[in-house]
Amino acid sequence: MPVNLPPLDLAQLQPIAGVRIGIAEAGVRKANRKDLTVFLLDEGTSVAGVFTRNRFCAAPVQVCREHLDTGSAVRALVINTGNANAGTGTPGLAHARQTCEALASLLHCTPAQVLPFSTGVIMEPLPVGRIVAGLPAALADAQAAHWAQAAEGIMTTDTVPKAASVQVTVGGQTVSITGISKGAGMIRPNMATMLGFVATDACIDPALLPTLAKQLADGSFNRITIDGDTSTNDSFMLIATHKAGNAQITSLDSDDGQALMHGLMQVARQLAHAIVRDGEGATKFITVQIEGGRTAEECRQVAYAIAHSPLVKTAFFASDPNLGRILAAVGYAGIDDLDQGLIELHLDDVHVVSQGGRRAEYREEDGQRVMKGSEITVRVGLGRGTASDTVWTCDLSHDYVTINADYRS
Amino acid sequence: MPVNLPPLDLAQLQPIAGVRIGIAEAGVRKANRKDLTVFLLDEGTSVAGVFTRNRFCAAPVQVCREHLDTGSAVRALVINTGNANAGTGTPGLAHARQTCEALASLLHCTPAQVLPFSTGVIMEPLPVGRIVAGLPAALADAQAAHWAQAAEGIMTTDTVPKAASVQVTVGGQTVSITGISKGAGMIRPNMATMLGFVATDACIDPALLPTLAKQLADGSFNRITIDGDTSTNDSFMLIATHKAGNAQITSLDSDDGQALMHGLMQVARQLAHAIVRDGEGATKFITVQIEGGRTAEECRQVAYAIAHSPLVKTAFFASDPNLGRILAAVGYAGIDDLDQGLIELHLDDVHVVSQGGRRAEYREEDGQRVMKGSEITVRVGLGRGTASDTVWTCDLSHDYVTINADYRS
Repeated sequence: MPVNLPPLDLAQLQPIAGVRIGIAEAGVRKANRKDLTVFLLDEGTSVAGVFTRNRFCAAPVQVCREHLDTGSAVRALVINTGNANAGTGTPGLAHARQTCEALASLLHCTPAQVLPFSTGVIMEPLPVGRIVAGLPAALADAQAAHWAQAAEGIMTTDTVPKAASVQVTVGGQTVSITGISKGAGMIRPNMATMLGFVATDACIDPALLPTLAKQLADGSFNRITIDGDTSTNDSFMLIATHKAGNAQITSLDSDDGQALMHGLMQVARQLAHAIVRDGEGATKFITVQIEGGRTAEECRQVAYAIAHSPLVKTAFFASDPNLGRILAAVGYAGIDDLDQGLIELHLDDVHVVSQGGRRAEYREEDGQRVMKGSEITVRVGLGRGTASDTVWTCDLSHDYVTINADYRS
Repeated sequence: MPVNLPPLDLAQLQPIAGVRIGIAEAGVRKANRKDLTVFLLDEGTSVAGVFTRNRFCAAPVQVCREHLDTGSAVRALVINTGNANAGTGTPGLAHARQTCEALASLLHCTPAQVLPFSTGVIMEPLPVGRIVAGLPAALADAQAAHWAQAAEGIMTTDTVPKAASVQVTVGGQTVSITGISKGAGMIRPNMATMLGFVATDACIDPALLPTLAKQLADGSFNRITIDGDTSTNDSFMLIATHKAGNAQITSLDSDDGQALMHGLMQVARQLAHAIVRDGEGATKFITVQIEGGRTAEECRQVAYAIAHSPLVKTAFFASDPNLGRILAAVGYAGIDDLDQGLIELHLDDVHVVSQGGRRAEYREEDGQRVMKGSEITVRVGLGRGTASDTVWTCDLSHDYVTINADYRS
């Protein structure tokens, strides 16, 4: 059961003019499963993306990078679940290229105008024949209103589809932003999440898109972690169809740029948080907020040490205010000149630790009260500066072990 | 149930001339539990130690460092379980000092000649009064033959006591080496283990002891991990009583120095491996061996990425050869210029991956066969150089979650 993640409100998902989505059953790994999704983009659409920094990145990630590097106008995305096409060597690269070629031939464009994405089991050969055979059905299914179906189509161990949508006003025009994401395990994005796609009809200078994609990923998907395992297939794509009729945004610092950024970030964060809320076995949504650091980077380092500690995560699962485990994680986060005598710790509104020691006023029952909730904020003060940063994570439960001990069987 | 860790053979533990050990029930956390251990060292004994690099190191660790820095001859160690005296601020430091003062007064030595050690729950006030009250009983109990009792006395979530003993010949003389350790969770030593004590009657230049302690820790306790959580209390102490009658060892490079080092390393590794075999919830003992790196450090980095990955660890628990998870961990280990096309992977004798891709000859049932065993070696070739390193770890099971969700209750 995901943590405070209400069922998808289909009516709330705005279609994006210039984007149509088709879904089909290709039988990649299992029969009777929508496992093939195609995004069709109108001419004039701009696309930017960020990808995993895992050096064992999947074949489709390598091909995406190659195709984007050619500067060709992207006309389609093709996404399969059930197989990650990672750890597949040279044949894997050939399979990703074959998929693009087949779709390009159906769309009368070049293979470089198609971006491939895969997610699923690593190190198994991609059944490229079945994917190619499924493409015509996906094309026949293409509709602007298919965002919810796409959110379902890209799921693997996710228990619920993840989507978000907002409208913002830019230069007097209503602009729509809609996105989907997937991922529940192997989540510690280091550039982007497992798979995230956000589209907007806003008219924006295409040259700004790569920066925008990076900033969005950094403020959302790059701040979440479930198990610390950075996936081989992380990809986050930002699509702008430029059809909303607003005057083109030429700077992200302008009022219009800020309004759009705000809307995009809202969608990206909602999608990123949804991944954590649906984290494998998650029962709690935890915000780890570090303040008083010298740099945002060292704050992040401490936040991840806490967010990755199996001992901290199991204590949250048990609702046990065994908060010394948080101090231990702060201590081994790698800040060599950290002064433990300056550390402060709050759990929501409860002040637990002052000057590195448990406060005399702290009562176990207060910690217990907070730990029992399903939304918890851990706030650590480092007492070294004014920088801060935040990471979102979930607890570590029996179900995480069950899910990952059973995933392939 | 620890992994292939036979019950302690009490008769096999050699006493060390010059060391007596007494154990008592002080009621630190629970009644009717041997939770206080005192080591008494004859005059002339040399002691060296290495301690946790966790910046939130416990009060006793800070006091140990202070006392060793004075250069005073150490005459006693005092160890309590049930409370780590970490995250306890200034009062915690006072409590650790009070413990040393009380024992010094009973032994007619100075407080700086006593080293304190604590292990147990973090961030709770040390019941120093009960510890001081228990000291006379521990002294009255002191005997050279009490190593096995001490191994039991320092246990926390350990399911079995851990001890090892060997005899080696140095310059024609028989020299004895005996050690004990504890720890099952919060184990990723970064200097030393939770608590490890090794004593020898060998006569050795005291000036060599610190180097020797560091080399021993690096080859044993600093190469194991259970959950990646570096403890606040890690301490490894090497004690030499110089009573064996051998000609003093003045160089570790001499034949005698090598013979002694070999014996000491054997004991230290056995103790370190015992911690992994008794890792919380462990069902498998896993050796992660990385070869072909540019430096030993980058090999270690990759080894730890694999050894800490919850996805890899749950796959081992499930005996599921979902080996793509190992490749993913290699990829995110942080070697930025790693070439995935050069990676080789062996699971015991099974060659799984060649040139970054799954070998055509690899059969799932061969991987399955290895995964079903309780002792598994993962061997990764990086194809970048000639350096190598090894780390030992265990799997991640339901019992790890159960133990750590229940530890304090």
